[in-house]
Order: sequence, then C-alpha cells, then structure tokens
Amino acid sequence: MKSSIMHILKQSNDWVSGEYLCRELGVSRTAVWKHIRGLREDGYDIEARANLGYRLRSVPDIPYPDEVTVDLDTVVMGSRIEYYTDLPTTNGEAKKLARAGCPEGTVVVAESQSGGKGRMGRFWFSPRGRGLWFSAVLRPMVNLVETPQVTMVVAVAVALAIREHTGVAAGIKWPNDLLVEGKKICGILVELNAEMDRVNFMVAGIGLNVNIDSSQFPPELSETVTSLKIAAGHHIPRVPLLRTILQSFDFWYQRWLREGFVPVLNKWRELCVTLDCPVTVHTMKDSYVGHALDVDETGALLVQTPDGEVQRLVAGEVSLRKI
Amino acid sequence: MKSSIMHILKQSNDWVSGEYLCRELGVSRTAVWKHIRGLREDGYDIEARANLGYRLRSVPDIPYPDEVTVDLDTVVMGSRIEYYTDLPTTNGEAKKLARAGCPEGTVVVAESQSGGKGRMGRFWFSPRGRGLWFSAVLRPMVNLVETPQVTMVVAVAVALAIREHTGVAAGIKWPNDLLVEGKKICGILVELNAEMDRVNFMVAGIGLNVNIDSSQFPPELSETVTSLKIAAGHHIPRVPLLRTILQSFDFWYQRWLREGFVPVLNKWRELCVTLDCPVTVHTMKDSYVGHALDVDETGALLVQTPDGEVQRLVAGEVSLRKI
Repeated sequence: MKSSIMHILKQSNDWVSGEYLCRELGVSRTAVWKHIRGLREDGYDIEARANLGYRLRSVPDIPYPDEVTVDLDTVVMGSRIEYYTDLPTTNGEAKKLARAGCPEGTVVVAESQSGGKGRMGRFWFSPRGRGLWFSAVLRPMVNLVETPQVTMVVAVAVALAIREHTGVAAGIKWPNDLLVEGKKICGILVELNAEMDRVNFMVAGIGLNVNIDSSQFPPELSETVTSLKIAAGHHIPRVPLLRTILQSFDFWYQRWLREGFVPVLNKWRELCVTLDCPVTVHTMKDSYVGHALDVDETGALLVQTPDGEVQRLVAGEVSLRKI
Repeated sequence: MKSSIMHILKQSNDWVSGEYLCRELGVSRTAVWKHIRGLREDGYDIEARANLGYRLRSVPDIPYPDEVTVDLDTVVMGSRIEYYTDLPTTNGEAKKLARAGCPEGTVVVAESQSGGKGRMGRFWFSPRGRGLWFSAVLRPMVNLVETPQVTMVVAVAVALAIREHTGVAAGIKWPNDLLVEGKKICGILVELNAEMDRVNFMVAGIGLNVNIDSSQFPPELSETVTSLKIAAGHHIPRVPLLRTILQSFDFWYQRWLREGFVPVLNKWRELCVTLDCPVTVHTMKDSYVGHALDVDETGALLVQTPDGEVQRLVAGEVSLRKI
C-alpha cells in the first residue's frame, strides 16, 4: 500500500488529493494518512496541505527495493531485492535465500553489516548508510572449473560502473579487489554451493565504500582504504550508483554466459593495475617475490620469480611491492 | 550411560553382576535395569539371570557410533559419528553440521533416507536398514580447481573397500558411479561450499546397496541396479563393512592431500570399467556418441567422436553403448 501511494505521488509530480488516493486505493482517509506517516518515517519528504492533499518533495537516498528498481533495466539482476537496516553479512542472508530457492538475480542489501567479511575471513568495515553492502544470487549453468571466472566478471562490472557513474578511475588488483590510487575501495567475495557437476548457486558479495570520510575509517585501515567520496571530492548518492552497478553486473554476467570468458578477460586486463608489477605472493603453502606478468586464459596470475621460472597462481594473496 | 554399560559387557565377555555395574557406574540397580532395557530396544541381545547378572550375547548390525568406532583406525574419518533412523538426506544433515562448524571427518549415517538423491537431483532408493547411506564432512586445504578430484578419491576408496571386504569386483564408471556386472551398486554425491580461494567444506555422500534383494527394488530400477547381497550371494553385515570403507576413505583422502592426484588417478584408471568403450555423452549443451579413450591428469574424460576429434569432458553424463 505504501508502494502504491508512493507510485501515485511520483507519477503525478504535483499535489494529489487525499480523496483521490482513497478512491484509487479503496481505503479510508485514516489509512492513507497512516501510510503517509510511514513513508515519512522511511525518509520520504511528503508535504501535506488541507485543501491540496499530498505532494512528494524528495525521496531518500536509501536503497529501498522501490527506489532501486525504478527504470532498472536488467535481465536477472534485481529480479527481487531484499532491503535490511542491519545484517551480520549480506552474503549470509543471500545464501539462506538461495538455499530456500530464491530466483537468480535476487539482491540482498543492508545499511550496515555487523560481521562484514572480506576474502580469507578478514574483517570488512561496513558502517551504516555509508556504503553499498550487497550480495547477488547467481545460478549459472556452468562447470565447476569455470566458476572462479565469476569473481572477474564482478570486478570488471563494478569497476566499469564506478568509472561510468563517478569518473573515479577504479582499477583491479588480482584477482578481484578494486583500488583507487593504490587504496582499496571495494571488496568482492564470491561464494559457491555446488555438486561436482552442477552449480546449485553462487553468491557474489560486494562491499563498496561510498560516502565514508577519511576520519571515519578505523586507524589501522586508514592508510590502505579509501572511498568514492574521498576520491571524487563530493558526496555520491547511493541509489543511482547501485542501479548502475546492477546494470553493469547484469550486462557482463549475461555476456559471460553467452560469449564465454574471453571478452571478460580482455576487459579485466585493461582495468588491471597489478600487471607488469613487482609483487609478493602468499599462498596456502609458501610466500615468494616475483614480477606479475599476465593472467592466462583461465584467469590464473602468471608470476615470474627471480630465477626466471613462471609460477601459475590460481589462488592466494598478492601484495604490491614498492621498489 | 548406555555406552558405559555396553563397554563393560563387551570387555568382560562373560557374566557381569548388577552389583558390579552399580558400583562401577555409581547408579542404582533400577537405573542399570532401565539402561539394559534401552540397550535391548536398540537391538543388543543381553541375557539376564538372577544370580549371575548380565551377559552380552550379540550386538546388532546397526551402524551406531559405539559400534562403528570399535577399532576404527583413521586420521579424521569418523572423528564424530551421528546416527539417525531416518533423514531426508544424509548430505543435507552433514551440510547443516558443517555450516555449524563440526570437525572434519564427521560422518552422518541414516537407516533410511526419505528423499535420497543421486547426481543431477535424481532419486536414490534408500530403504531402511538395507544399505549404507552416509555422508562425511571434509575440509581440505586445496584450491577450488582441485575439488572435483575428491569424487575420484571417494570412488577409488569405496571400490577398493568393497573388493577387500566382500570380494565383489566393483568397478568405476566415469566419473564416480560404482558398478558390478554393469549394474549400479553405489552412488557418490560430493557437494562443495567454498569461497573462490578457500574451501569452506565439502560433503561426500555415499549410497551403497548392501542387503537389498532383487525383488525389493522398484521395477523401473531392477534392470540397472544391484546390491552386494545379490552380487556376493549372501547377507553382508553392515557395521564392519562401513568401518572398512571409512578406513579406506581415510587412507586415500590422506594420501591425496599428501601426494596429490597422481596416485589416485592411477588407481582410478585400474578400477575403471568405462575406458576403451563406446559411449553416449550427454552434457548440459548437447549429446553425442564416441569412444571413451582415457582420463587426463585433471580427471576429465577424453572421448573420441566419429570424426576423430577428441572431446574433453569435465562434467556430464556418460552411458555405455551396447554394440
């Protein structure tokens, strides 16, 4: 009902009488008033005048499903959007929905995460209303060996959306962190639930620092992380940004399903900032220094060690060395 | 308490007085009697005589944790065993325990599965007490690309355990069904929960037809499935068989972690009954006929099509063609 009232107010773009709302929606004046109050509590600025009725002055920059889906043009992404003020992690909630059979493209978004996590179980700072913390459920009909490509699909899609929407030159660090001027601005955590020859579902979690000021980061992070606001020099509305990201994600995901990994990989190479760089590699087994040469056709990083050998890295941690 | 009484009766192998049990366990005669009754209900045959006390005549062939773990010699397999009379699926319960953080090697075993499933979501006939329906939780520190190897580890381990324990010549059909004389005797369903560079857990589900008579199979299955009892010509006790399988599984799993895929693959090739055979291949995309040549070093099946080309098959369904 709140959605319907909002829809009418948005469409009219002018005063709408209470009487009209009652008639259209088949409810009492008291009911209309109750829902208007609810919308105001949600952050919608609605003017009310005795003789004129109601007029929408502004919508809040909060990723409510009703706002995100306005003019959202996608095949699957955002097919269903679940909004929460707080979650332990959006990936956790998305996995729960996925196990229960939610449609592909279901997106879980939260204002804050109490237990936000990055790769390798690391803490991810997710303060209330200052970022886009969300997860999308995917159900690709691919082989298990192709699933790691999804992290690169997401990295490409989000980096391009950031560039297009804000002009901030986000780059990719292998395999899927987004950096701006060497500092992390976005983390991507893709999880997989599969049988050996069938993907049950994947969940792609994205944590993007949007309107966090330098002073708001925990001191131990302040040297290594940044936000779009810091990089762009101004506040960035989150709802249109999220819409752009979902559209870009949808585009690159569909393209990957249709055309395979090559177009993704080519774009990934263009956006990567850690190729032809000295790196330190940490794997589950050992650590070594080397020079990042390229990625191969599977997305593995090729690192040349000082003795000239080339190591093929399918998983692990890579840090840039300053020389 | 029931476990402790059982332990004392097993150790003694003779009459044990009620007085002795009371003293050892610090409980009343009534309590001892109550637990003896419980053990009898569980299927333990315990004799009771006024002047002598209790004597264990026989233990039931039911995979209770206390029975399976007797002399079980493994590194991780069976570190914890959960027994159920009925479950929807043992894989489902094992995944629940794994998400909650259970130790590696946790085994879930059920007398029957109401929703037993094979690969591709297919029905798996799991009648009460007639088979070994169980799942093990694994937490290997390996890369995602190596995880499909686990299905072949399980196939090798179970096929060898069956051969050793019953003399029935179980063979492997790519990738991981076990056949006896061309009929399916065991299905293996491995599931994976992972991040892109870290395995959270895997669950290996095994459904082995033990004491099912031909007449007990649903008519639509009777031509394509068999059981150990049918193949061996006699009833097979399940508890020692399960113990042998867990030990074999543990051995091959540890060997795989330590030495990699090559020893597993070599043994898999020896046990495979579908190499050098005419096959029909069904993948997610298409179907074709060909000749199964070999598996490569990743476990993919190499199939030569009539035009001479060799297809590399990483997932899909292969059926043997009669010519």
